[in-house]
Amino acid sequence: MLPVIVDAMGGDNAPHDIVAGAVAAAADGIPTELVGRIEQIAALEGIEGAGELAVYEASEVIGMADEPGRAVRTMKDSSIVRGAERVRDGHASAFVSAGNTGAVAAAALLRMKRLPGVNRPAIATTLPVPGRTPKILLDSGAMADCQPDWLHQYARMGSAFANIRYEIDRPTVGLLSIGEEPEKGNLLVKETHKLLADDGSINFIGNVEGRDVLGGEVDVVVADGFTGNVVLKTLEGTIGFLVDEIVARLTVPEAADVGSAALGLLAPLAAELHPDAVGGAMLLGVNGVCIISHGSSSPTAITNAVRVARDMVERDLVAGLAAAVAR
Amino acid sequence: MLPVIVDAMGGDNAPHDIVAGAVAAAADGIPTELVGRIEQIAALEGIEGAGELAVYEASEVIGMADEPGRAVRTMKDSSIVRGAERVRDGHASAFVSAGNTGAVAAAALLRMKRLPGVNRPAIATTLPVPGRTPKILLDSGAMADCQPDWLHQYARMGSAFANIRYEIDRPTVGLLSIGEEPEKGNLLVKETHKLLADDGSINFIGNVEGRDVLGGEVDVVVADGFTGNVVLKTLEGTIGFLVDEIVARLTVPEAADVGSAALGLLAPLAAELHPDAVGGAMLLGVNGVCIISHGSSSPTAITNAVRVARDMVERDLVAGLAAAVAR
Repeated sequence: MLPVIVDAMGGDNAPHDIVAGAVAAAADGIPTELVGRIEQIAALEGIEGAGELAVYEASEVIGMADEPGRAVRTMKDSSIVRGAERVRDGHASAFVSAGNTGAVAAAALLRMKRLPGVNRPAIATTLPVPGRTPKILLDSGAMADCQPDWLHQYARMGSAFANIRYEIDRPTVGLLSIGEEPEKGNLLVKETHKLLADDGSINFIGNVEGRDVLGGEVDVVVADGFTGNVVLKTLEGTIGFLVDEIVARLTVPEAADVGSAALGLLAPLAAELHPDAVGGAMLLGVNGVCIISHGSSSPTAITNAVRVARDMVERDLVAGLAAAVAR
Repeated sequence: MLPVIVDAMGGDNAPHDIVAGAVAAAADGIPTELVGRIEQIAALEGIEGAGELAVYEASEVIGMADEPGRAVRTMKDSSIVRGAERVRDGHASAFVSAGNTGAVAAAALLRMKRLPGVNRPAIATTLPVPGRTPKILLDSGAMADCQPDWLHQYARMGSAFANIRYEIDRPTVGLLSIGEEPEKGNLLVKETHKLLADDGSINFIGNVEGRDVLGGEVDVVVADGFTGNVVLKTLEGTIGFLVDEIVARLTVPEAADVGSAALGLLAPLAAELHPDAVGGAMLLGVNGVCIISHGSSSPTAITNAVRVARDMVERDLVAGLAAAVAR
């Protein structure tokens, strides 16, 4: 297969942790290349094998706080734009970036273009859930204001993605709302509900609620990008807050032994909930495989993202999405 | 003061737990009365002092799954409608119900009427946060589709409520969005941001994100009722999911001693996060004090709700809200 191109400059710990993750993926036998500032990458120390990866020059770096649309339009020699172009031009099979989410989505949309028939691409975030297959939440932030037919496509693309990535047969699809009944919700959700209920190509189980995002039995949760992003950050924030509180209360000096033993019992749960294991969010609806990893990605997260990218290329995710949308 | 009227029939464990909570509030010296099915309440066993509370007859009970608007229009002799009427007619100072949230809000709106100048009432939910004053989230579900000027009023009412209930001086107000920058968000949020930024009567700190709902330093989180409700249920669902997982992993037979000691260390955290302590959500913007308690309310939750109702009557919440809206 064509190499996976990794944005060396995107992410809180870029380029070091990104390059380390890419090197590990290459060592695993996955053709992996980098895009970014060659000199800065060459100067990295302590990453064995880093010199063996091809690096394509991109002189600019889009920051995490930059306005995405403007950044992509004006910084044409940025690692994000150049990476997306390598997929467009047939030099790479997939693009992985832990950089500015909006900028990666915008660059992929502008350079790779939409799949035929797709209204808007969506960011599909994988939510790890202890004890079951992960869940897919989409859109988790590509488009803040949505139309019912866009959400309808998100449902089809999310369903196809859950099937292709997690091999779930007829994944259950739920529409995020504020009550299970079809008449509950805002105007967007009520209109979307009708479209999903009439679509025999997906396994629509009706409205789901915020509590079902982690706890329920739904595989694919459909929302507009505003609500999806708020939910994702509420979920991450709540888990992070509780983990900090639990650690604080289990590390009191007067119960050090109990605390450390208990934290040992709870460590697997923390690992199962950690987003690094799932490697990143998938941009669905563009003509190429594009993974948007968490800004805080560790080397492991990047390695996992490259693995997922390889799998999605091999299983031809893009063709699967195109077929789902065209159905 | 005039008595607080409690809906004996609303809630998952009604009427038993509701009556038990009301009796405890009365024993605390708060004038408390009940509305509901007199015979059913008289037949309750095991609640000492239940016979001493005045009960006003209401022959109908609105169910948790009933469509709120229709239920309130057609079930005129329901405990929810009759309870709201006792406030309207000057027989009670406040109404407490753990019944169908939408029906309580609708009955309060139709019977007590809006405060002058209020566009729409909002449900203000108190979120207990370990180690700090609770936060206020509004609207947490009264209106799914909102206008910018409604959210603007929610900000003023929420700010006044945080000040009156928690004695926070100039509470910080945040607008729930998907990024801190003013230009981030959906159309509703972007328009609302301008209104809040121009309002010197509130301490607006800008946009906040899902992670700030528990973790940040904001006192009042403003959202439309759809997003607010989704966030509230995501928060509750995530906490509930994690509590279950933690208990499961700390109750394995091979580490029973460590597990039970650790759960003892964590029990205060669970108690601090439990909604029973805060007594219920407050409907802001109607001409009366109206508390909507959680469906799962325990007797303690109801007692706390009656206490909060008493406090809000004594501190004249309604006049404070009217002044905040008119500013």
